[in-house]
Parts: sequence; structure tokens; C-alpha cells
Amino acid sequence: MKSCGVIVEYNPFHNGHLYHLEQAKKTTNCDVLIAVMSGNFLQRGEPALFDKWTRAEMALNHGADLVVELPVQFSVQSADYFAKGGVALLQALKCDSLCFGSEEGTGTDFKRLANQVEEKRVVIDEAFQNFKNNGSSYPVQMNQAIKSVFPTHSIDLMQPNNMLGFSYAKEIIKAQSSMEIKTVKRHLAQFHDESIEEKTIASATAIRKELFNPSDSFKEIQKVVPEDVFQFISTTEYVDWENYWELLKYRLTTMSLSDLRGIYQVNEGLEFRLKEKVKEAFAFNEFIQLIKSKRLTWVKIQRLFCYILLNLTKVEMAEKVKQVEAIRVLGFTKKGQEYLKIKKKQLEIPLLTNINQKNQHLVELDIRAGLVYQMGKIDQKINQDYRRYPIRKK
Amino acid sequence: MKSCGVIVEYNPFHNGHLYHLEQAKKTTNCDVLIAVMSGNFLQRGEPALFDKWTRAEMALNHGADLVVELPVQFSVQSADYFAKGGVALLQALKCDSLCFGSEEGTGTDFKRLANQVEEKRVVIDEAFQNFKNNGSSYPVQMNQAIKSVFPTHSIDLMQPNNMLGFSYAKEIIKAQSSMEIKTVKRHLAQFHDESIEEKTIASATAIRKELFNPSDSFKEIQKVVPEDVFQFISTTEYVDWENYWELLKYRLTTMSLSDLRGIYQVNEGLEFRLKEKVKEAFAFNEFIQLIKSKRLTWVKIQRLFCYILLNLTKVEMAEKVKQVEAIRVLGFTKKGQEYLKIKKKQLEIPLLTNINQKNQHLVELDIRAGLVYQMGKIDQKINQDYRRYPIRKK
Repeated sequence: MKSCGVIVEYNPFHNGHLYHLEQAKKTTNCDVLIAVMSGNFLQRGEPALFDKWTRAEMALNHGADLVVELPVQFSVQSADYFAKGGVALLQALKCDSLCFGSEEGTGTDFKRLANQVEEKRVVIDEAFQNFKNNGSSYPVQMNQAIKSVFPTHSIDLMQPNNMLGFSYAKEIIKAQSSMEIKTVKRHLAQFHDESIEEKTIASATAIRKELFNPSDSFKEIQKVVPEDVFQFISTTEYVDWENYWELLKYRLTTMSLSDLRGIYQVNEGLEFRLKEKVKEAFAFNEFIQLIKSKRLTWVKIQRLFCYILLNLTKVEMAEKVKQVEAIRVLGFTKKGQEYLKIKKKQLEIPLLTNINQKNQHLVELDIRAGLVYQMGKIDQKINQDYRRYPIRKK
Repeated sequence: MKSCGVIVEYNPFHNGHLYHLEQAKKTTNCDVLIAVMSGNFLQRGEPALFDKWTRAEMALNHGADLVVELPVQFSVQSADYFAKGGVALLQALKCDSLCFGSEEGTGTDFKRLANQVEEKRVVIDEAFQNFKNNGSSYPVQMNQAIKSVFPTHSIDLMQPNNMLGFSYAKEIIKAQSSMEIKTVKRHLAQFHDESIEEKTIASATAIRKELFNPSDSFKEIQKVVPEDVFQFISTTEYVDWENYWELLKYRLTTMSLSDLRGIYQVNEGLEFRLKEKVKEAFAFNEFIQLIKSKRLTWVKIQRLFCYILLNLTKVEMAEKVKQVEAIRVLGFTKKGQEYLKIKKKQLEIPLLTNINQKNQHLVELDIRAGLVYQMGKIDQKINQDYRRYPIRKK
């Protein structure tokens, strides 16, 4: 069975995602579509609007055949680790190809550039030193360094999807994987577009904005998501960071400076600033404004807050991002199930379809993330991990 | 100026407390009454119904001239440390006498027994070994040990007030203090009586019970507390453990086993039990029922939960219970203020009337307790420590 993988978040699932899945199927002519999906906390350092089970179901309803969870230590990360976790899971599942959206460039273009960069790593690292202190963000600086070594390369790495795609390509090259790359040209909506206009594809950012600030045009969302997703969105409780603000404030208030220093990404005396400012903040957005600086962007701070909220320490993160330890299945169609049956014997890491005393250590951080995630919801009794089994779709 | 001290909690202030203050004044003929009062978390391991400022004001309205805070490392403790902190603060304030309620015995009786016990400490400790594993609680065993050495002593240490009074007396003897002891015979209500009957004095336990489960007879409370206290109680938000349950659950959920082991009084593998059972509990009372055992009584568990909620570690508690570090003033009358003016130069530890960057380390744990306490309330913006000044009464 020929398989194609996608690395996704679906927060929430919309027509652009649908287009991506359709194109992935078409362009690779695969039998089975595998989605590696972030769990309950996402790349931008946010709790997902809807939990991983809900979002897995949306994916299965619209073309995915198998949904596995990208562990939290890879999902709440910048492009490099996000790509590392995503690609590693697809590899672990013996996936034949990876398909992602890009602003430009073919799979071959991405692979070529990744190869070149990998070969000239030392030179690029040297070049990077020249841009290191120019005040730009890391991706901008890295793009400048690459451009200075390969002035004519064909992919604009300043475009967010290109950048993420390039990270995937690098991981594939590093792993000496035979996985093919296919790209789908980004269609209509730009990645971070903030308003929904007269079209049927909008970014998830625009949809979330509409959801959080429902204007007269709340129904605009209806045009840009599948009908079943719209029904769900408009009738279901969703969560955002404000739901976790109390817990974050409580932890920061009661945590010692040295424990705070032990949290992943709390560096350079940031612990003092966090402890000091939390006293003055009485809402999440208020707090983030107090912490924001030129170097600490909104997204970086949100990720940092996830690490604090989930008590993810430097020690455990260093250990847990070394490699993916298991394949956590969230759901499958009949075809997805068949695929797993065929590949089962070749898998080199455990395939988890339920969580129990024996295997819980493999998804320890996701269990913790699920328990905290559920605390922001009305019905706290719903389990995210124990006693949950893969969703089955025809 | 002649001074008399009392060690109190006022949760809430009631007619029995009023009687105690009146008798203390009468029996010692003092010019000024000093109350050492628990702050926002109490001896039984509970958040106070009303914050320390509110309760200090109740005390000042009804006879106290000076209210100082018993730090949380002494207040959320069994009788021994509670007494140690209380007596040490009165001594630090150069107080002439201590007056407490007891079921029987005069101050002389208490001092005599404390002296005898102190002299025969080694013998009693030896005797204690015989009772150590008989399944009773520590106070019961200690009483048995003392009885076996002094069979005819006149104070029944099984009575809760006698036991606490005896702890005060021991602290006075240990400190070789000249502080006098006066007792007030407990009047009408028993310490732990659970119902309010036809009388004007009821225990705080009975009042709290009435408050939490308002029956038709909610107005019964009116008979047993001063009128202004009743007005306040019946119109003001109060808190109980359920207000902090979410925070406790969140901390237990996200805390590592080794961090949990670092919390004061988390011993003998209790960390495993706590982590395991918290998954099953969705309310505070549910959780306490799951943790309760013959050795772990309700009150002990509640204290333990305070230590976890406030993140009080073994290391910091060991350091902070060595001695009282400062005198934190919550309020005074003119007489109280005059007393402080006279004694100021003789004080050996700092007198704090406001909290700032310079002195905050002296009341670090109380600040933390205040911040967490406030998180259980509706108006979280009220400061408990910074920018708060002593209440002044005529």
C-alpha cells in the first residue's frame, strides 16, 4: 500500500486543509493518507480549540486514513523540533512520501536545497555568525546566511510555509530517508491572514480570530470550513489561553526561582522578570504584554508559558526530544487499519492504541498535557489518554 | 504598660472569643491586650473564612489592642510548632503574660507540669517508646507517657485546650521566659462541638458548620457572635478548601514525584498515593476521602494539602521554623500603638508595618500564602501584603 504523510494541527480543520489532503492524494496517488497531528497543545504555544480526539475525527471525516499524535515535546516547538518529530513519526510508520503546502518550489527543489545546506553546514554556520547580532529573528538570520552561501537558490525561506517545508526536507536528508517530497501550492489564503474575505479558503488564524471575536459575520466561518466542522464549532465549547491563566499564575506565584530556572527555555534571568510581572497581571493577555520584548515574541512567550504550565523541565525535555519513542494512534479508517496491520511487524518503536500502566512512560508528557488541558474545560471527567481507544471510521 | 497576650485564629470571631478577651483583661489587669493571630491559613490546615485583615479588625473591634500575624510556617502546624511561634512572638514583644482557655487547671498548674516534664524529658522520652506503636495518635501517646511518669498530675492532656495550653507552657519553660500564665475556664461550648444550641457561646467549628450548610436556623449564628461580625458574615464572600481544589489538583497533576517528595511532610511513599488518587478525584472532599487512613487524619491531610498548595518544601520549612524572624503588625488601637512606641527600642527582631523589597524576605512564606489565598477569591486584585498598612482603631 502506497502511503503519503502530512504534518498538521487542524486548529480547526478548514477548507484549505481539505484541499491539501485532496491534492496530496492526487499528486502522490497514494492508497493511504497518514496525518501526524499535534495533540492538545500546539506549535504556536496554545491549547488547541478542541481536543486531539475531536480534531482527529475531523481529519478522518475529510480524507485522512490514519491519525497519530505528535508528542507535546515536538509540537510546542519552533520549526526545527516540530519537523524533527513529524518526519520521525512518518519514517517510523514507513511512509513513502511527505506532502506539504508551500508558497513555491517543488519537492525536488526543497530536497536539493536541504542537501546543499547539509553539505555546506560548516560554511553556513560560519556565515551565520555575521548575521547573528543584527536584531532579526533566528529564521531571518538563517535565511540570510543561506542566501549568502547560495545566492541563487529558488525558495524564499522568509515565507512561513516554505520555511517549515525546508525544515521537513532537512530532517529527511539528515535521516538519509528515502521519503519523497511533494508540495502543494498554497491556495488563496496566506498563512497568517487575519480576515476572512469572499472566498472559500481562509487561514486557521483568521478562523480563530473570527471565533474569539464573533462579529455580525460570525457565519463567515461557514464558508471556509466543511459543514460538519461548522456545526461542531458553532455548538461546542472551545478553550483558549484564558482558561489556563489561573493555573499559570498560580504556578508562577508559588514556584521558587530555582525551580523556574529549571523549566525549558527559561534562560538569561527570565525567571526574575516572570516572578515580578506575574504579580501585576490579572489576565493572560495582560501578562503577555508585560513580558513581551523585541527578542521575546508573542509566540515564543506562549510556548514558554506552555512549558511552565505543563512543568516541562530542561532535564526531561532534553531527554524526550532525542527521538520519538512510540506511535500513538488517535484514529483510523478501514484503510488506515489495514495499513497498520501490514506494517506492524516492520515497526521499530511501539504502536500504542491504548495507554496503560505498562506503556504510560512512553507518553508521559502527553498524559500530563492531557490532564492539564482537561482542567481548562467544563467537563473535567473526560479522559484524554487512559481508557481512550482509536476512533474508527469506515 | 502591663501587657497580656493571647494566641488565636478567630475563624470567625465569636462570643467565646469575646469572653476570653474580657477575662484576660480582668484576670491580668493589663493595659494592653496583644493577639498573635494566624494569617490566611490555619492550624487545622484550612484557608481562613475571611482574610487576616478582616479577622484582625474583628479582634480590634472587640478588645484586642495589637494584632500581629503568626507566620504560616507556625500556624499550619500541630500544637508544638503552633505554640512555639505564638509564644516566641509574645516574648519578642516583651509581653508580661499569656492567657489561654483551658478545661481545667491554673497557670501555676500548667507551669508546674511543664517544668516537671522538661526536667524529666529523658525519662518521658523513654516511657514514650512503650506507647509509640499502640495505634493511638501522637498527643494521646505523649499523654500516656507523661501520665506513666507523673500519675497524679492535675491536667487532663486529652482535652484539646489543655493540650494546647500545655504546649504554650512548655515553650515558656524552654525559653526560660518570665512570662506569666493565666487560664480562663472554657465556658459552655466545648472546643469541637458541632451544633449551635440555645446558648450564646458556640465553638468556631459549630459556626463554620452552620455557615457551610445553612439550615433554617442560619440565624442561630446571630446569637453566638457579636452583631457586627454577624452583619459581616451574612453579607460577605467567604472561602473554603473547595475554592483551592483546582489549584491543588493542578499542582499534584503536574508535579514530579521527586518534587512532591521535597514537600514538607510528604514522607513514606505518600507521593505515589497522592499522584495516583488525584486522577480519580473531582472535588476536594472526594480527594480527602481517598487519601484518609487511620494514620492520616483529616486535619493532618488538610495541613499536608496546604504545604502542597503553597509549595512549602522540607528545606525551607526546616529553615523557617527555627525562630520567628520578624513581628508583622496587622493592626492596633491607640493603646497598642503607644505600647509599640515604648517597646520599640528593646525589640530584638524587626517590627514590620509595611512590606517592601527590603524586608519581604522576612515574610516570604506569608506573602506566598497571601497571593495564593487571594486566588481563591473573586476579587483577586486585593493585596494581602504589599501596600497594606496596619489597621488603626481608636
